[in-house]
Order: sequence, then structure tokens, then C-alpha cells
Amino acid sequence: MPESSADIDVLARLRTEFAASDGVAASVSVEAADLDRVREDRSGRRAPDRPIAVVYATSIDDVQRLLRLATATHTPVVPRGAGTGLAGGATGGPGAIVLDLSRMNRILELDPIDELAVVEAGVLNGDLNAAAAAHGLWYAPDPASRAISSVGGNIATNAGGLLCAKYGVTREAVLGLAVVLADGRLVRTGRRTVKGVTGYDLTALLTGSEGTLGIIVEATVRLRPRPEGEPVTIAAAFADVEAAAAGCAAVTAARLRPAMLELVDDLGLGRVVDHLGAAAIAGTPVEHLAPGEALVIAQADDTDAAVRAARIAEVLRAAGGRVEVSTDTVAAERLIGLRRAWHPALAATGEVLIEDIAVPRSKLPDMFRVIGEIGRRHGIEIPTLAHAGDGNLHPNFVFTGDEPPAEVWAAADELFRAAVALGGTLTGEHGVGILKRRWLRDELGDDGYDLQRGLKALFDPAGVLNPGVMFDVSNEPRR
Amino acid sequence: MPESSADIDVLARLRTEFAASDGVAASVSVEAADLDRVREDRSGRRAPDRPIAVVYATSIDDVQRLLRLATATHTPVVPRGAGTGLAGGATGGPGAIVLDLSRMNRILELDPIDELAVVEAGVLNGDLNAAAAAHGLWYAPDPASRAISSVGGNIATNAGGLLCAKYGVTREAVLGLAVVLADGRLVRTGRRTVKGVTGYDLTALLTGSEGTLGIIVEATVRLRPRPEGEPVTIAAAFADVEAAAAGCAAVTAARLRPAMLELVDDLGLGRVVDHLGAAAIAGTPVEHLAPGEALVIAQADDTDAAVRAARIAEVLRAAGGRVEVSTDTVAAERLIGLRRAWHPALAATGEVLIEDIAVPRSKLPDMFRVIGEIGRRHGIEIPTLAHAGDGNLHPNFVFTGDEPPAEVWAAADELFRAAVALGGTLTGEHGVGILKRRWLRDELGDDGYDLQRGLKALFDPAGVLNPGVMFDVSNEPRR
Repeated sequence: MPESSADIDVLARLRTEFAASDGVAASVSVEAADLDRVREDRSGRRAPDRPIAVVYATSIDDVQRLLRLATATHTPVVPRGAGTGLAGGATGGPGAIVLDLSRMNRILELDPIDELAVVEAGVLNGDLNAAAAAHGLWYAPDPASRAISSVGGNIATNAGGLLCAKYGVTREAVLGLAVVLADGRLVRTGRRTVKGVTGYDLTALLTGSEGTLGIIVEATVRLRPRPEGEPVTIAAAFADVEAAAAGCAAVTAARLRPAMLELVDDLGLGRVVDHLGAAAIAGTPVEHLAPGEALVIAQADDTDAAVRAARIAEVLRAAGGRVEVSTDTVAAERLIGLRRAWHPALAATGEVLIEDIAVPRSKLPDMFRVIGEIGRRHGIEIPTLAHAGDGNLHPNFVFTGDEPPAEVWAAADELFRAAVALGGTLTGEHGVGILKRRWLRDELGDDGYDLQRGLKALFDPAGVLNPGVMFDVSNEPRR
Repeated sequence: MPESSADIDVLARLRTEFAASDGVAASVSVEAADLDRVREDRSGRRAPDRPIAVVYATSIDDVQRLLRLATATHTPVVPRGAGTGLAGGATGGPGAIVLDLSRMNRILELDPIDELAVVEAGVLNGDLNAAAAAHGLWYAPDPASRAISSVGGNIATNAGGLLCAKYGVTREAVLGLAVVLADGRLVRTGRRTVKGVTGYDLTALLTGSEGTLGIIVEATVRLRPRPEGEPVTIAAAFADVEAAAAGCAAVTAARLRPAMLELVDDLGLGRVVDHLGAAAIAGTPVEHLAPGEALVIAQADDTDAAVRAARIAEVLRAAGGRVEVSTDTVAAERLIGLRRAWHPALAATGEVLIEDIAVPRSKLPDMFRVIGEIGRRHGIEIPTLAHAGDGNLHPNFVFTGDEPPAEVWAAADELFRAAVALGGTLTGEHGVGILKRRWLRDELGDDGYDLQRGLKALFDPAGVLNPGVMFDVSNEPRR
């Protein structure tokens, strides 16, 4: 709800701007429910108060006009897709306009011969995949949220997911972008060809830029032939998470590349069971886990799935796992569904701060050991899962209130420092957002940080694009 | 040879700077042979006169000291690896210092568990591969020049090669970089982990930046398990290049992904035979080609090679190819060696301007048809080969003298415009360099071009890093 006279002026200009347009008008909402919805994402972060308005764009022209207005009035714009971010990167607070792109959800082109699609930013990952599947194709970026997250948001965070070790992260699937700059100009980057090196790689630079360099409005993405045949799924129970992590590291060290290699601990599995009910695990390998046991879920796909799966199973067995191999895809989907339910299950019990560290894959067991130590030292549970094939871990903190309590931040700080000490990184796939910006300079170093600030200033001299995200600067311009 | 008093001053400062260092001194050369060597790369471009000096760096510190000196004296620095570039991107001319990185050729680390290597920029691609092979690993970027080109140069141009359709371009193999900025500061980008999204992707931005944003001095690169078993090779003769291109497009359309899919035309093959002698083709499929016939060389690898190769052969046969399938790896290496000899064979007959357009893969036959038309219209031969799996074509112009004659540029201009009209791009893998900068704005558009100029100015405000490469600006700063 507008509070200052400046906010009221901006809102009046918004209404004039978007009232005048013809047929493709965006709508401007100041409904309390809308404003409250966009204060939050799925990270547990909630902006301290409501933004000025939510603008629902339906065209590139809408976005351009909004950005011109924002630059003219020095009003922050927070771009937002499906709102499933996990780092507070798309949360609108006081003085800001939230640009909601979810209505720009058309698949503009799907070329089955050249295996690409051109989509508006708000298309859901799952919807693009459904359309591609009709041609035997597949959009590989596969975040756990794929059914509910948008392609544009996936690109803005360079989302990872469950299949990256074999199929790469989002960046590898993006051929080109259409981006509205802070001043409202539209720039198209990249190309429709598989290869191309004309000029600097702005497509890659904008991928993962979290709405701070430009507004991604369209994307040309690469599709892949779907893997052939049915995948083979391996479930392996280990006495504890460290043993499970050692099993996963052994798979990597054996030069095997499962399409999926997920590790889930007992603390998180317990909450999934509480959330979904005991029936959800009946007949799955989770049903037979003893207290404290952790589970590894691996999957091999494509024409050599059976051969690969047998070898993965052998390595996991040799590492001490109790292994089941299955070609039943319905059972596999149920099992993987338990993994995908992890975040909603935790979120049902409180606010969730989900860490996202990554370490070299050989360091997985070390990292799990440290997580256990940190949890015990601070007297808190840290349910953890890992995309073990990538060395990417998600330690979770569940809390109540708008902001994680001090002991959670203290534990998170130790986690991050431990990851970096092991040769790792602050965020593997969720992005920096607001929640992790405090550590950015530590990881990048002063010169690297300054260079990144320079990029931000080049693209967004007035500081209207998602200010406060990625960089923790107290001198962000405000009206 | 220094010509102006300013050059003499710079040279004196260089000698003082590098004479004073201890044991890790770079050497400064003004030998005529050195200066002439670095005026050229493999593109046919030759700088109009000699540079001031060649500095052979042996350490990061050398590079930092040189850049500080260059910035202080406003002297252009042309970074150079093995000098195998094909766009004039590393050619030193009057008033410039050439920074030769070929002596920074140590493999600093090779971690077989986490499957990565840390190398100095001057390490040859082939040498890294030899070291990786000892651990059953492989560095996938595979330009035709791999035996003689450096990893740093490959990264600076985001080199492609013969295996990109399945294994990606150089960018996908680079995890992190150490880069000396224009003012001499050292920045490390990226990480050792498979995934990571902390801050903007400077690693990707610098990959392919052709020495214009910073000097790449070290790289952390991803290694891969070597494909298992022996590859299966398919050779298919077609009546002409258009038919061969249609065969390749059919392979892509059938959702097959050969590790390699190369198309070579009769004009180029003739020159390879002239260069290597008839014995080189004895017993290979090239021996049995009729006049005008073009050859497709495909390869399937890894555990499912036989299955995949059979399907590729079937598609090529259905498209009218005369197909041979072979598991004889010695014979395959001989055949692929003929492909790799293409550029040296052409270079033996004159200066070579090698174009590097890429089109959507379905447009390959159209592009080959247009190349034929352009050649006939201008009365010149345009021997052409293609990485057909990527839609990347190399039409070649052979000429005499320091600069391509007008009719070659006219034909090249038509080629580029035709590629863009087909949804393609100016350069698939060689880079813009000096030779293709005239078309950069046409492809990027004015706003995209200006944004790229802004990036250049941000990283290199004094304009000392490889000025004239990528951007054709008449106002480059000079002393």
C-alpha cells in the first residue's frame, strides 16, 4: 500500500501508463492479497512491508514501458516469475514495483527439427516439457520445483536440479535471450545455432544474474532428444549420511555418471513421511529404512541404462549400501516424488532457510561430517539432502518468524566457511538473492567483488533493477 | 623494431622492468624473426609492420608487471598463446607489445578424483590430453588444431571443434579462470565445483573474449571419463555437397547425436591429396570418391557405439550415401587425419581466409547451395567443410598477398549475410578477431553492440587490451 507521497505519484503514473494501452494492457494491482503474496518467495524471507504495486505484464512492450517509468522515477523494480525462488531474490518491499511475468506464458515456437523452443519468460518449466514431449524432445534443466517454476526464473538463477551431473545446468540449455534493459531498451543476445562466438557471451552473463542486470522476457532454449527406453533406478540404504556420502563419492570416483544421484538423510525423510503420510512410503525403499539410515537414489538412463545401473549398484554395494535395483518406472516416480516433496514437507513445519553449498565431489563425506558437528554444536537439527553427483548440498534450517534467528545464521555462517575451506562455494544453484549476499565478497574477493559491482553499474546505472539482491549495499538509490 | 621515440621509451622501460626480476624473469625480444612471427596467426592476416617487442612471460607476476607498465604508458598489449588463431585476434602490429604466454605451459594440478585440471594458459591442448589420458580422463574441447593450440587460446576464443555436438564447446569445460586485468590486478573467477552461481558468470564472459577484457593466465578445467571401448566410424560418399548436407541434416532430424559428424567437399579433399600425396588416401574411403563427390565422416563412441553407428549408417544410406562402417581405429585415425590436414593443405597453396558461419542444422543444405552460387557468381573456388552436427561451416578462400582481394571480401560478405538470413551467425567457433569485426554491429544490432562496447570500456578503460580486435573503432587510444 503506498505510504509516501512519492509512492502515490508513482502509482498514479503507473495507472496512467497502463490504462492508456490498447488491448495488451498489463494490469496494475494494489490488492492486499497480491502485495502480500509478492513480499515472499519460497525462501522463508519476507519483505518488511508491502511494495507499491504489482504490475502483471503481458507483452515485451509492457515491460519496456514499465522500465522507462521506473528509470524516470528512480523506482526499484523486482522482476518475478512463479515466485519459487529460494534466496529472497524476487521479494518486493517498500518503495518497489513488482513486475510479475507469470502472464507472459506463451510458447512462441517449438522447432522439432532444430530442437529448440522460443518461450516467454513466464512459461512453466513443466509446461515447456509437456509441449516438447509431444515431439519426443525434452528441456533438460530439472530443478525440483520444475512443475511450478518458470523458465525465466530458472534462467535468472541459472537453476540446477536433479540431472545436472549428466545433462548440465540451465546455462547449457540457453541459446539466446531477449532482455529489457534498465532504461527500457530491448536487446536480443545469443542465437538459434548450436555454436556461436560473435561478441561477448551476454547470454551466459545474464543467465544467473537474478534480475539485477536486465529483465529476461524471452528465451531461445535448446531441447534434447528424450533418453531412450526406461530408466533403471537404484536405491541404496546406508547406516548414516557420512557412509552414504562416501558411497556417492565412490560412484564418481569409479567414473560413472548416473543421470541422477541424490542423497537424502533420515531427518528430512522423517518430515516427508509426516507431511505425506505413511501410505506415501508404503512399498518404497524408504519404508524399510532403520532409524538413522540415509538413502541414496540413483538413476541410469538411455540405451545403456542396464549396464550402467549394474555398475552403480555394484559400487554402492561395495561401499556398504543395502541396494535395490528396479526397472519399475511407476515405483521410481513414487520414490523420486518423495525426494521432490522434501521442500514442501519442511515448509509445512515452519519457515525454511535452505542452504545450497557445493563442494568438490570427493569432499562430500567431509562436508556431511562438518554439518553434523555444526548441528550438534548449535543444538539444532539440519536436515540435509544432496545432489551428490554434483557435490551440491542443501542443509535446511526450519524456524518460525520472518527472519532466521541468530543461532541459525551463526550455523549457516559456519557451513559456508567450511564449504569454502573444502574448495567449495556459497551457492550451487539457488542464487545469492538477499539471504546470501552477506557472504558474496568473502567468496569473490575484493577485486572480483568490485568488478561485479562495476558490471551492475554498467547495466543499471540508476540502480532500479532488483536493488539489494546479490549486493548488500547501503547506498542503493532511493527516491 | 621500435620506430617512434615513444616506442623506444616503452622498450627501455620493458628492459628495466624485466631485467630487475629474480629468476622468474620474462625475456624481452626484439629479434626480427620473433617480431615477424607474431605479426601473423593462421588466418592469413599479417599486421602492417612489426610490434615494439615480444615479452615471453613465465609467471603471473610477469603478466601483472607488464600490464601495469602498459597501462602506465598507454601501450597496447596483444596476448598470444600458440598463434594458431584463425581470425587475426593475436597479431601484433606497430606500437604494440605482444605478450607471448607459450612458456607458461605447466600443468599445475591434475585431480583424477574430482576430474579437473589447473593449467597455465600456454599448455597445449594435446599435452593436457596426454596427461589426462594417463588417468583414463579426457579434456573434451577438440579444435582441429588441438595438437598445436593452447588451452588459454582455446578459452580466449571459446574454441569449438569436431566433437561439440555431443561434448559441448570450450565454455562447457571451463570451471574457473585466473585473469590479469588491464591495470595489472589478478582476479580469480569461478570455482572447482561442478555447479556454482555465486555472482555473475565472469568465467563465461571471459571465455571467448579474445584477449580484450583481460589476460587469461590460468584455467581450472573439467575433465571427463574417456568414452569406453572403441569408436565406430562411418564414411559416406554423396554425389555432391548438397546431397551430403541433406544426409547430415537427416541424421540430426532422426535425433541421432554422433560424437563426430564432419562433411568435407571435393575441392578441399583435392587439395589435401595434393598436399599429403596419394599414399595418404590409399585404402581410405577418399580413394574411391568419384569427381565432385563429397564425404561425410561420422563417429559413434562409448558403450552404445555399435547400436548408434548402425542407425547413423542407415539414415545416411537412406539419404543416398554410399556407406562404409568400420571399427578399425587405425583406419579411422587416418581418415580423420585427412580432415585435420585440411587447413595446412590449403595454407600450403596460398593465404587462407577461413570463414566460420553457423546456421540452424536444418539449413545446412540451403547454406551449401548458396555457397555454390556465390562461388560461381564471383568466379572463385570456395572449398568448404562443415562440423555438420553443429551446423558450423568453414568456407575457405585461398589468395595471395597480405590482405584478401576485393572479390574475396565481397563473396565473404554475401556468405555472412546469407548465414544470418538463414537464422545463423558470423562466427561459430573462431572468433571475431580483426578479420570479422566489420560485421559485428550488423549481427548484434546497435543496442547490443553498444552494450558490448560498454563491457570493453569497463574492463579496459585505457584501451590497452588487444585494441582493434572485435571492435572496429577508429578512436582506439594510442600514445
